[in-house]
Parts: sequence; C-alpha cells; structure tokens
Amino acid sequence: MQRVCFTLQVKPGRLDEYRLRHREVWPDMLDALRRTGWTNYSLFLRSDGLLIGYLETPDFEAARAGMDLEPVNARWQSQMRDFFIDPGARDPDKQMLSIEEVFHLD
Amino acid sequence: MQRVCFTLQVKPGRLDEYRLRHREVWPDMLDALRRTGWTNYSLFLRSDGLLIGYLETPDFEAARAGMDLEPVNARWQSQMRDFFIDPGARDPDKQMLSIEEVFHLD
Repeated sequence: MQRVCFTLQVKPGRLDEYRLRHREVWPDMLDALRRTGWTNYSLFLRSDGLLIGYLETPDFEAARAGMDLEPVNARWQSQMRDFFIDPGARDPDKQMLSIEEVFHLD
Repeated sequence: MQRVCFTLQVKPGRLDEYRLRHREVWPDMLDALRRTGWTNYSLFLRSDGLLIGYLETPDFEAARAGMDLEPVNARWQSQMRDFFIDPGARDPDKQMLSIEEVFHLD
C-alpha cells in the first residue's frame, strides 16, 4: 500500500463553499473513487486555504489513471476547478503531486 | 479513531538534515510514540519545507499529553526545535495544531 499526500490551494473566498460541497460528494463519485483504489482518503483544509489530501492505495498512478477513465470524475473536476488557485488552470486532480514521505511509524 | 493532520515549516537550509534525522529516529522515541497512541503516523516534506504530519489516534489531546510525560520526547523536541520556523520559538510538538477534516472516504 502506498501512502500518498498532496496539497492544493483553495481560493480565499471559497472555503465555506468548498466545505459544503465536500459534505455532499456525489455517490457515483464516491463509488468511482472506491472502484479505482482510493482508500482511507481524507481532505484537510487549513484556514488559509491550504488543502491537504491523504490516501492509501496500492498504486497512486493506477488510481489516478483509473479516475481518468470515469466519466463522473470529468464532471466533478470541471466543477471543482474554479475553487483552486493554479497558474496552469489544470483540473484539480492534475495538480495532485505526491509529496515525499520522510518518516513513518505503523 | 481520530485522523489528525498538522503542518510545520522547516527552515529552507535544513531539509536534507531533517530527512536524515528522520531515517534514524531513536528507538526509545518510537517506543514512546507507540505507547502513547500515535499510529499510522507519517511525515511528508514538500520541497519548500512545508512539513505535513498525518496520524491516527484514539484521542489526539491524550496522545500529546502522553508524550509530554515522556522524558525522551523533551530531548527529541529540543534537538528538533532549531529545524523549524516558528515566531513563538515553541518546541515543534507545541506547534501541532489539528487541521479541519472536510472529507473522508473509508
């Protein structure tokens, strides 16, 4: 199992709306994540808009590639894109760079 | 089980040394963490020095209070203090504020 951590930056004025949207993630989006191996997946939102993702998956590249093939993901990402600051205007899932793990204790 | 995420900021010139030190965390420090309920505990280090901690524990306040009573923790924190940027010059473990979880998928 890989432990994966990534960061994104939510726009300052959109934090409340981001929180609300994530209380009601579409069931078919959740199903797609489960089907493609995203487990123990949490998002944490710091008050300055730093968003931290953590998940466990057999293979992060495969999990991302799997979601790329899910039509619901394209719809979700297109709705999420405007919540984030990204100079490249990429879909949020394309901004998820895995951060180096420097310590682990089971 | 609580899922806890916190951030700290490592000084720009100290990243390599921080990595090295965390490959060789003292065994009695690891034992103290285990004894006080720090499980599935990872540290991730972004290239700009943002350090992200993730752990699972029955009660984060109890886990912190437990470590406060471990003599090895005082020695470890005093050695770690200088790695971090903190206006308050606190020990690193006193800077660990739990960040709001806005989404979770088992």
